[in-house]
Amino acid sequence: MLDPSSTFVALVHHPVRDRQGRPITSALTTLDLHDIARSTRTYGLGGFFVVHPAEAQRALARRILDHWLSPEGAAKNDHRRQALETLEVVPTIADAARAIQDREGRAPLQIATAARKSSGTIGYRAVQVDGPALILLGTGGGLADEALAGCPLRLDPIEGPTDYNHLSVRSACAIVLDRLFGVRQD
Amino acid sequence: MLDPSSTFVALVHHPVRDRQGRPITSALTTLDLHDIARSTRTYGLGGFFVVHPAEAQRALARRILDHWLSPEGAAKNDHRRQALETLEVVPTIADAARAIQDREGRAPLQIATAARKSSGTIGYRAVQVDGPALILLGTGGGLADEALAGCPLRLDPIEGPTDYNHLSVRSACAIVLDRLFGVRQD
Repeated sequence: MLDPSSTFVALVHHPVRDRQGRPITSALTTLDLHDIARSTRTYGLGGFFVVHPAEAQRALARRILDHWLSPEGAAKNDHRRQALETLEVVPTIADAARAIQDREGRAPLQIATAARKSSGTIGYRAVQVDGPALILLGTGGGLADEALAGCPLRLDPIEGPTDYNHLSVRSACAIVLDRLFGVRQD
Repeated sequence: MLDPSSTFVALVHHPVRDRQGRPITSALTTLDLHDIARSTRTYGLGGFFVVHPAEAQRALARRILDHWLSPEGAAKNDHRRQALETLEVVPTIADAARAIQDREGRAPLQIATAARKSSGTIGYRAVQVDGPALILLGTGGGLADEALAGCPLRLDPIEGPTDYNHLSVRSACAIVLDRLFGVRQD
């Protein structure tokens, strides 16, 4: 089990891969911020980090954030404000981990997500973390090897009854959080 | 149980509600088309209908579709083509139901989704449909009463451990399909 309030999500724009597997830095997609913030808020997570190495892209993310957290933005759509309240913009995954350590008193266990099948992944109900956790979501073609290397745990890829594995990162995040923290009546 | 290959999704822009509950027609969000098409493709659904009463908005959806289904678009990103292949643009929910009846030989059972709690909703594992099904997703503030009235089944709202229930329609669709058709290793 994971405690949602000490679990965090990082949306990683570097180091990630392109569709051919080459290392790249991906561009910010503004709708990712809203969708993933809403999902992390729904499932009661501790926070959401947007990881981008380029200052201009971080400034863009902060500008969106500042708008929706301002009195004017909140008056227009308070649900956006509530969702974006826990979003932080950082240059690297290590910076996200440090921010969590400062808050929780312990470094988070890093948990990778991937669309590709590989050995050594773990099922959603089998995740056991005592302490804070940081779930990494790769944009573009997914997390690069150097990001995966820092993750002691990797979650099973999300699978349906087909071999198509190209969900958007927004959809994949929603499903991962629902599998880990969703409340079902049946 | 539902058979994914005879289950369809309709993204409804009318009749829906605004955030204050008033009946509106919402505008198309182009990213919805890609995200929901990818999700329906991942889970092996029979098809995806975009429902909009305005011809100009249907033309916009078809233009996006034509681009990604063209040889030029497919060469740029074949995963988009594969996902969008089963997308159809129709004016009304009834048109989507008729198209399914033409293909499947029977009218689909309409299944509503809603973020608001209400009595009479059903859990995801309890859904039993013998024949085709059409899952309605409301944009804006959700399906209007006249759309809900046509649905013999309504799914439980998606819940996490908080009372925040403002997922994006893209995220909600992904979670609904994963709860109904997801394959889990554990």
